[in-house]
Amino acid sequence: MPEIRWDIITEERVIIATERSRRPHDFKKTDAPAEPKPDFVASCPFCVGNESLTPPEVDAFRTTGTQPDAPGWWVRVVPNKFPALASEGDPAPRSAGIYTLSDGVGVHEVLIETPRHNETPVAVSMQQWIEAMRMYQRRLHALAQDVRLKTVLIFRNEGRAAGASLEHPHSQLVGLTFVPPVLQRHIEGVHRYRSRYGRHPFEAILEQELREGVRVVRQTERFLLYAPFASRAPYELAILPLEPIGRFEQLPDETLQEFAQLLQDALRRLHAVLSDPPYNYMLFTAPNGYADEFWMHLRIAPRLSIDAGFELGSGVGINITAPEDAARYLSEV
Amino acid sequence: MPEIRWDIITEERVIIATERSRRPHDFKKTDAPAEPKPDFVASCPFCVGNESLTPPEVDAFRTTGTQPDAPGWWVRVVPNKFPALASEGDPAPRSAGIYTLSDGVGVHEVLIETPRHNETPVAVSMQQWIEAMRMYQRRLHALAQDVRLKTVLIFRNEGRAAGASLEHPHSQLVGLTFVPPVLQRHIEGVHRYRSRYGRHPFEAILEQELREGVRVVRQTERFLLYAPFASRAPYELAILPLEPIGRFEQLPDETLQEFAQLLQDALRRLHAVLSDPPYNYMLFTAPNGYADEFWMHLRIAPRLSIDAGFELGSGVGINITAPEDAARYLSEV
Repeated sequence: MPEIRWDIITEERVIIATERSRRPHDFKKTDAPAEPKPDFVASCPFCVGNESLTPPEVDAFRTTGTQPDAPGWWVRVVPNKFPALASEGDPAPRSAGIYTLSDGVGVHEVLIETPRHNETPVAVSMQQWIEAMRMYQRRLHALAQDVRLKTVLIFRNEGRAAGASLEHPHSQLVGLTFVPPVLQRHIEGVHRYRSRYGRHPFEAILEQELREGVRVVRQTERFLLYAPFASRAPYELAILPLEPIGRFEQLPDETLQEFAQLLQDALRRLHAVLSDPPYNYMLFTAPNGYADEFWMHLRIAPRLSIDAGFELGSGVGINITAPEDAARYLSEV
Repeated sequence: MPEIRWDIITEERVIIATERSRRPHDFKKTDAPAEPKPDFVASCPFCVGNESLTPPEVDAFRTTGTQPDAPGWWVRVVPNKFPALASEGDPAPRSAGIYTLSDGVGVHEVLIETPRHNETPVAVSMQQWIEAMRMYQRRLHALAQDVRLKTVLIFRNEGRAAGASLEHPHSQLVGLTFVPPVLQRHIEGVHRYRSRYGRHPFEAILEQELREGVRVVRQTERFLLYAPFASRAPYELAILPLEPIGRFEQLPDETLQEFAQLLQDALRRLHAVLSDPPYNYMLFTAPNGYADEFWMHLRIAPRLSIDAGFELGSGVGINITAPEDAARYLSEV
């Protein structure tokens, strides 16, 4: 019997239909294993030595004495060469007859996580991966100074089916002058839940998930990795801090290191169980003005199925793997 | 300069970023042209003669004297073999600790549009295509009797990148016991617009689109085919009736024929300009209890780009083709 599950925050429904369920093996690609990748690709704009192929860098961790846009860096941030938003312009809405539009103002950066082409998040050293996370924090700190921005979203697209166009390990950052619908609905849902039950829904989730255990993949000292009850798609995962923290950039360095380890662990588990699946992850940190009611969290969305006409037309996800099954497979690795 | 455009109904924003714009040619597949398909495939459960490969039929247009689940049909409706929802069960929500769930009750049918494997919507005869549309109406009429259902969504997935798993021309129908978020937001938006401006937003859209013409692909006696101002993705199209009609199944047969012709024309234009792209279309008819404020309409979403971490994490679309450009290319065919 299929189930309908309500998202505890947005109250949106998801269909869990495991009769067409597939075991992890069935999601695996049938292709031969990928060829090992080289650590340098001459045409790759993100490989060390190719700095001239990107717009001038915005920020970098680099060896003292080395010059911007030259080798010597280990994490490097550049503007997106084809930005979705422009840094200058007028964000005020204007009319075009009955319609409303504005200049597309915002920030669109690429965070190059390593100089080496083949150091994917599952292969990279923990030290390097922590440096990438430190750069996430540094960019969030820097962009907090741009008073035009309401929301900064960091995300990662891995694999073509997840929208990646370049192979070299990188994340992206988009700064928006508004709070977008996904976050708006989250914030409204948190507010509604708190008014009704007197506590943040993440508190309630942590309590129940830690007690039941069936959707928990791993708990660390300060974080929980789990498969959300109303996951929209197979093998979705979330990382929640065990105590409220509004902004990712507030994490003390020791906590950040623990987060980095858990994130790599989550990606390695997905890699092992689903054989290097395409995925996105999205890091949610408090929009400006919402730090009080917001808990930072990260959501991982493996791209094992395709949203088709039903999902586009309804907004309802059909998930063929119960989150409890996903958590079991992933915790057994 | 990228633009942000507001959807006039939902008020959600879309980014139109044409600096990475591609002309229609750049969306075309680089593969060799597809092999011509046969009109019968022995293993295809939807081909005539293979009726035993599907669950027992729910409805069909068939020659008098022929038996259900045997040849003699020209449009056939069967339950989905792997239904997302079950026909029996208790749709009432129940608690599981802090969470809410229910049985997944609803209807999930497959509408086989033709007995012949290779009669895609762009290749099929108009007479056959009109019969498929008549079956849409017939199923909507029949399911209106099921008082449990609030919403019936008919949609079509064409091509693997649009979520199609079977090649034989077919649509699907899902009946839900609730109004899903996409329709809920549409209805709320219509209500808000009407309270504010005293008319349905589709009236305002028709007036401005017909006056400006830049987003119009084609107008017929009773319908408009156009590229919506705030299209979330390249080459999105919509078909709107010029006068308010709440339910698709209310269309008189002559009007239905005109609709069928315009829909095939729209799909042929996309096929010609974008070289047989994957696409979804979604037919929106009034949910039960909303006939007053609802206008039926159809939305076509070619799947030329992939929603990545930004779109998943924000709910904001990035569209690299201005709707005005899409309309120009499509109307020039």
